[in-house]
Amino acid sequence: MAVVVQNIERADRAVIDGLASAGVATVHEAQGRIGCLAPYMRPIFTGAQIAGSAVTISAPPGDNWMLHVAIEQLQTGDILVLAPTSPCTDGYFGDLLATSAMARGCLGLVIDAGVRDVRDLTRMGFPVWSKAISAQGTVKETLGSVNVPIVCAGQAIAAGDIIVADDDGVCVVRRTEAAQVLAAANKRIAAEEAKRARLASGELGLDMYEMRERLADKGLKYV
Amino acid sequence: MAVVVQNIERADRAVIDGLASAGVATVHEAQGRIGCLAPYMRPIFTGAQIAGSAVTISAPPGDNWMLHVAIEQLQTGDILVLAPTSPCTDGYFGDLLATSAMARGCLGLVIDAGVRDVRDLTRMGFPVWSKAISAQGTVKETLGSVNVPIVCAGQAIAAGDIIVADDDGVCVVRRTEAAQVLAAANKRIAAEEAKRARLASGELGLDMYEMRERLADKGLKYV
Amino acid sequence: MAVVVQNIERADRAVIDGLASAGVATVHEAQGRIGCLAPYMRPIFTGAQIAGSAVTISAPPGDNWMLHVAIEQLQTGDILVLAPTSPCTDGYFGDLLATSAMARGCLGLVIDAGVRDVRDLTRMGFPVWSKAISAQGTVKETLGSVNVPIVCAGQAIAAGDIIVADDDGVCVVRRTEAAQVLAAANKRIAAEEAKRARLASGELGLDMYEMRERLADKGLKYV
Amino acid sequence: MAVVVQNIERADRAVIDGLASAGVATVHEAQGRIGCLAPYMRPIFTGAQIAGSAVTISAPPGDNWMLHVAIEQLQTGDILVLAPTSPCTDGYFGDLLATSAMARGCLGLVIDAGVRDVRDLTRMGFPVWSKAISAQGTVKETLGSVNVPIVCAGQAIAAGDIIVADDDGVCVVRRTEAAQVLAAANKRIAAEEAKRARLASGELGLDMYEMRERLADKGLKYV
Amino acid sequence: MAVVVQNIERADRAVIDGLASAGVATVHEAQGRIGCLAPYMRPIFTGAQIAGSAVTISAPPGDNWMLHVAIEQLQTGDILVLAPTSPCTDGYFGDLLATSAMARGCLGLVIDAGVRDVRDLTRMGFPVWSKAISAQGTVKETLGSVNVPIVCAGQAIAAGDIIVADDDGVCVVRRTEAAQVLAAANKRIAAEEAKRARLASGELGLDMYEMRERLADKGLKYV
Amino acid sequence: MAVVVQNIERADRAVIDGLASAGVATVHEAQGRIGCLAPYMRPIFTGAQIAGSAVTISAPPGDNWMLHVAIEQLQTGDILVLAPTSPCTDGYFGDLLATSAMARGCLGLVIDAGVRDVRDLTRMGFPVWSKAISAQGTVKETLGSVNVPIVCAGQAIAAGDIIVADDDGVCVVRRTEAAQVLAAANKRIAAEEAKRARLASGELGLDMYEMRERLADKGLKYV
Repeated sequence: MAVVVQNIERADRAVIDGLASAGVATVHEAQGRIGCLAPYMRPIFTGAQIAGSAVTISAPPGDNWMLHVAIEQLQTGDILVLAPTSPCTDGYFGDLLATSAMARGCLGLVIDAGVRDVRDLTRMGFPVWSKAISAQGTVKETLGSVNVPIVCAGQAIAAGDIIVADDDGVCVVRRTEAAQVLAAANKRIAAEEAKRARLASGELGLDMYEMRERLADKGLKYV
Repeated sequence: MAVVVQNIERADRAVIDGLASAGVATVHEAQGRIGCLAPYMRPIFTGAQIAGSAVTISAPPGDNWMLHVAIEQLQTGDILVLAPTSPCTDGYFGDLLATSAMARGCLGLVIDAGVRDVRDLTRMGFPVWSKAISAQGTVKETLGSVNVPIVCAGQAIAAGDIIVADDDGVCVVRRTEAAQVLAAANKRIAAEEAKRARLASGELGLDMYEMRERLADKGLKYV
Repeated sequence: MAVVVQNIERADRAVIDGLASAGVATVHEAQGRIGCLAPYMRPIFTGAQIAGSAVTISAPPGDNWMLHVAIEQLQTGDILVLAPTSPCTDGYFGDLLATSAMARGCLGLVIDAGVRDVRDLTRMGFPVWSKAISAQGTVKETLGSVNVPIVCAGQAIAAGDIIVADDDGVCVVRRTEAAQVLAAANKRIAAEEAKRARLASGELGLDMYEMRERLADKGLKYV
Repeated sequence: MAVVVQNIERADRAVIDGLASAGVATVHEAQGRIGCLAPYMRPIFTGAQIAGSAVTISAPPGDNWMLHVAIEQLQTGDILVLAPTSPCTDGYFGDLLATSAMARGCLGLVIDAGVRDVRDLTRMGFPVWSKAISAQGTVKETLGSVNVPIVCAGQAIAAGDIIVADDDGVCVVRRTEAAQVLAAANKRIAAEEAKRARLASGELGLDMYEMRERLADKGLKYV
Repeated sequence: MAVVVQNIERADRAVIDGLASAGVATVHEAQGRIGCLAPYMRPIFTGAQIAGSAVTISAPPGDNWMLHVAIEQLQTGDILVLAPTSPCTDGYFGDLLATSAMARGCLGLVIDAGVRDVRDLTRMGFPVWSKAISAQGTVKETLGSVNVPIVCAGQAIAAGDIIVADDDGVCVVRRTEAAQVLAAANKRIAAEEAKRARLASGELGLDMYEMRERLADKGLKYV
Repeated sequence: MAVVVQNIERADRAVIDGLASAGVATVHEAQGRIGCLAPYMRPIFTGAQIAGSAVTISAPPGDNWMLHVAIEQLQTGDILVLAPTSPCTDGYFGDLLATSAMARGCLGLVIDAGVRDVRDLTRMGFPVWSKAISAQGTVKETLGSVNVPIVCAGQAIAAGDIIVADDDGVCVVRRTEAAQVLAAANKRIAAEEAKRARLASGELGLDMYEMRERLADKGLKYV
């Protein structure tokens, strides 16, 4: 039951970079308003905006052994994604693991549990999106798995799926749909630019999106 | 049932500005320790301190259509206040809506739900107090109402009530009581100045507030 | 039942300073992964890292009278630690009390309830770890106790125990074990320095900690 | 600020009884899907289904003094509705207060806080909908108000509004709208009877409600 | 994006019935301690113990339209499983839908949201495991999907997967693994019978499971 | 660090039985409104009312090994009390452990985590107060301690302290104070009997407790 899948497929780096640049809100809209992890997943510092291939970890509550195993599977540009097998807020990850992960080219961590040494991680510029900040330590006694499908903060994530994360939270994009989602995201960004200018000039969304008739049809009354 | 109330009364701007200057903690004390919204309402960035007239929005869960309707009702110095009709953390509001609201003179948003594009909103200096930060998008399918009485984060709010918001959270002041609350707040601020100096010099609150006798009467024992 | 214990024993200041320097995560590991308060206890601003002797307060919900009593018991280097007798998020503490506490040499506040005036407290550099930020005020009607044993955010704390707090949260160290915990913490810090360098050079934790054999014994499969 | 409003208007008892008979789900639909208190309000025993006029109580956290004051204001058929001024789970109400309330003709209690002696209350057949069951006692030190407008579990409630409560939770109906809501509820009940029979016979809602065309128009694909 | 998958594969009914008989705790152990939905999923009445093939529903928050669509896809012995696309506690399902679902042979509902008419559902003997009980109604405006993979209360569920539910909660078994999980469950049940008798006679688990040596090796001290 | 304390002192059984008979609400009042565990601790079935000596367990998250160790320490009339070292909802305890505990004379379990096999436990009449019901299993890999001081659901509990539990929740009484608390409880019960009769006859608490003058002094206004 405890396995490490060693060879996972990854999306094209240029596509991944494009998704990072688009950001979480745009990417999730571009793929049909899906893929957002639960909003309790918050960054330990603001301003990071990244995308990378998921190296997934299924770990027991209060046991971070599999993080050491997962780090060996990292390639440059990957993001670690950990889901505990039952709810846990312990601090699975700190500055030593971050040092090791950065040495392997890891871009960040998404963890549906706790993280610690957040001051050091901030200094190191290693971004983490987590459910909790907690100094509570973990043991290394029970196996889990690496690069198996997991559910993290409400979303199913497979190894090699693209993780996009910024100040708005975290979103997952299926690996095989990445290019198509990027295209839709870029189209969306272009369209928003024009809208932004019109709205800034005082034009109303009611007029720009031609909403007045449909609102009246639905029965909205002005009094 | 779905209505937009177009003409609402607003308090005097000088009074509103006075309340902004007093801040949430002082204002809520000045009106008898009432009016604070639930403490889960947190600012997306620190340092903003505002007050304005509420333009209220009652919106279905996961549906932000009424925000477009509400923006037309904004006057300079207003604050948008949105309550979903059932609990929701979706991101109802982002940078495009903020652009539009700012073009109408809106000072900020108070929302018992989620907000997104928080990096952009921070850059734009548009403050938001929300229950969640979430990229999860919304639809435009179901009507709600604008400028009707709502309950937002545990407080009843009417259109035109004054919203005061800062790093401590959000407080509502009834429009008709605003001048009297401001007077009480200013009196309180003056009194605190003197107390602050005495406490800073090492004088104890026990002595300054003459608490020792009442504590002894209630039965406090020193051992 | 309502008592103020006036003479409490405190640990040696040098030991306390050593614990502050080690930080929460290291200290809690050094004493066997115990002592962390619940992770919902968050600092009102980042960057503070302190340790001090606990002056404990057991207070009724929504009543901050005992804070005034406790401040008289403070000595330089102490930390106020308040637990309500039932769950409460009200703002027990603000800038006036902080002014008074600072005048007595208090280093900070740990409160399993709410705090307010956080902008002022941040300007004053007075750190607080709390369950909530809330402007909601309190009364002064019902007695509590000072320097009695309390349970705060899931940890039993006695007056004079050492409180360590930083961006990772809060940890308690028994007063009588403080020197021994500091020794263990310092040993741990020295060991981590060497590990950090090896991990930064790309060496894997799997090899450095010699984990491969034990993982295989437990049944981990690479596929 | 602390007031007891002594003369409140009540709706017609026959109308109130009709609303009790209709139940929470039907009543809230009949008035346009509004009025439900938060779903954390749960009955201490199943099977009760009541409606009555609200005698409202605004009480400080951990202080049940105002319940004694409110009981004097009860008339036969009333329901006590208590909202604390900040979140609290303490047990404000137990078997002695229930004995007193029942002696005044009170039908039940709705409380956005805790209740205790639930075994006795169950034996007495006195129904309570509460946020918590907690033995934690309260004090009698601080005033609140009776029969003022409150916000309870997310809904604004005025004295004399009709409270409907059953196993689905609690709903409030404005006193002045009660007759009209009852009429709409009764119409709804009649309509549902026929629908129930058709659905029980195997007819699909898709056909009975003629949904297929609208689903296709919106773009639903069968694969 | 909104699709209804019409032909789904189901496991053998005899296997499904075996899993129902084994119950949630045994089944989840038999498949390696995986598959449990979050513990907030609670039955509306105790005593039901069922298993069936999942007909999955992905629905917008506050919109139950897809339940009508899903009911047409039911076969005898199926279980409806609904996940909202963002967190929601509204009452998506009541006695009319239950009447319709029962007419199609549906065994129960698992819903990561709210349910209502629970008194009627209890009388009808239609079991529901839900996150909330709430009378709050829903609309029929926005499409979702039926029989697509969903994440419900923390578990990934595909159409045709087996849902096992009893008083301990809900567990999912992959359709293709059902027979093998049943075999393991039955083996486990047989083994437990003998253990139960020995434990009832006073024999200690420490001896029966031969734990003493391993505890000593790990360092457990008796004092 | 991992220890089993084998000889603990217990209170007199007659005193313990007296506390069981008094019940949680009365006992906690009798000792000055202290000792209640958090209200999220709920019984798996209603109607049980017990008291016994605590055999305490400190266990890692997701690891129930120490329960086997603790059962050997049980004497007739004891209650198992488990606190995980970090928050956990896993099902640590089921029907096999209950069979073993009952064979040793154990009266029940209080656990700040999850329990499973609740249908079996109900049939067996073995009461449990827990934070969660969850089928999620645990491992046996990491040591904890037995009969050491713990914090369980917000209360500090020592081995041999008396645990009182009923439908209102759970309360702890210090072993050395048990007799005195029982005396106060019995006095309270006698006093309540007379009050109950007067309240049932329609006398108001306002008069019986002579509250009117004090309410007026505090400033309560009747309007």
